Amino acid sequence: MKIYDIEGFPNPARVRIALAEKGVSDQAEFIAVDVMGGEHRTDAFKAKNPDATVPCLELDDGSHIAQCNAIIEYIDATYDGPSLTGTTPKQRARVSMMNARAEAGLLNAVGAYFHHATPGLGAELETYQCAEWGNNQKEVADRTMAYLDGVLAENDYVAGDSFSAADITAFAGLAFADFANVDIPQSLEHLQAWRAKVAQRPSIAG
Amino acid sequence: MKIYDIEGFPNPARVRIALAEKGVSDQAEFIAVDVMGGEHRTDAFKAKNPDATVPCLELDDGSHIAQCNAIIEYIDATYDGPSLTGTTPKQRARVSMMNARAEAGLLNAVGAYFHHATPGLGAELETYQCAEWGNNQKEVADRTMAYLDGVLAENDYVAGDSFSAADITAFAGLAFADFANVDIPQSLEHLQAWRAKVAQRPSIAG
Ligand SMILES: N[C@@H](CCC(=O)N[C@@H](CS)C(=O)NCC(=O)O)C(=O)O
Ligand SMILES: N[C@@H](CCC(=O)N[C@@H](CS)C(=O)NCC(=O)O)C(=O)O
Repeated sequence: MKIYDIEGFPNPARVRIALAEKGVSDQAEFIAVDVMGGEHRTDAFKAKNPDATVPCLELDDGSHIAQCNAIIEYIDATYDGPSLTGTTPKQRARVSMMNARAEAGLLNAVGAYFHHATPGLGAELETYQCAEWGNNQKEVADRTMAYLDGVLAENDYVAGDSFSAADITAFAGLAFADFANVDIPQSLEHLQAWRAKVAQRPSIAG
Repeated sequence: MKIYDIEGFPNPARVRIALAEKGVSDQAEFIAVDVMGGEHRTDAFKAKNPDATVPCLELDDGSHIAQCNAIIEYIDATYDGPSLTGTTPKQRARVSMMNARAEAGLLNAVGAYFHHATPGLGAELETYQCAEWGNNQKEVADRTMAYLDGVLAENDYVAGDSFSAADITAFAGLAFADFANVDIPQSLEHLQAWRAKVAQRPSIAG
């Protein structure tokens, strides 16, 4: 399989971490997309992924899967190794719920702040900005970090006892927060301790 | 199991349709939440679902699952009957991808327009509005309807050959569009034909 992405960006990082967790990073051929040059908005790329975003998975039959949750679902169901999306119906639902909270409340909220209330990727790419909305979403991110701190006071991982796709999303959200200069309060000690622990996983520390 | 929700709202409708598709509507006890009276924002409800939204599933062990995608994942994995989330890894990924597009691009985009650029649920509940953002999201909904029309020109259903959770999300998005007075162009004939077909399913027509 091929993965169209760009190194160092938060959503591509989610899929790279998932592949490494499953031990199959070498199964993917990575094809660099020149996001800063706008390659993801060309007709050629949008024929693969009409969302005009990275990452995008290309299967051996030539079909494409976009959206990190879908790509990680595919990787998790295809390869052996510890499950990233849960095994029982209840676990799967909890991972899905917590992943949705981490995505909408943290990763995408930080993204909205970055793209709307800061210069973001620069004037060429940020063709529509709504600063008021971006600043509102920073408040959402602040509240979600506090919420996750409470969750992690009582659980080893975001969706319970074991590492899951929800941890990957939350971890990518905090990395994006650093990049966008969104403060991660030291007082959120459970969130900080969880982050330090997750950063040591071979899928992240290398 | 118990489901906290309110009849006639688009997200609760998604779960009710999923239950009916699986033929297990009678397995759920529905508990009405007074959304217009703000009951979903009380501490008592937020102890069940910190997102302060409906629907919310309560399992027999007393734990709670919020977020439609998570609830439908649970229902689909727990009960027999035709799969709503796909069976092969590739199908599952495609349903997840198309569901994400229908959710972010249509249902949630119409919701942002409704809550931000119209009186929404009224001044008591709409404590923060950003009209510019709401109007931008209406444009996103317009583009997504056109995109789905193209998908449905070549596929029987949103995620391929069979009915799935992605159809439920898109159908709820169009119902919300009607409610919010977002025009669904007659010229989108594939989308209109798909909608008429889906509306006849027993899970929706009753
Ligand atoms: N919800 C999407 C988000 C993908 C996304 O926004 N990716 C960013 C890179 S981290 C991107 O492609 N940005 C391009 C742009 O902003 O124009 C997913 O899960 O894949
Ligand atoms: N992403 C959530 C959305 C739930 C949602 O927004 N529900 C609406 C009813 S359709 C709600 O609770 N609104 C309450 C409010 O706006 O205060 C899900 O999938 O469950």
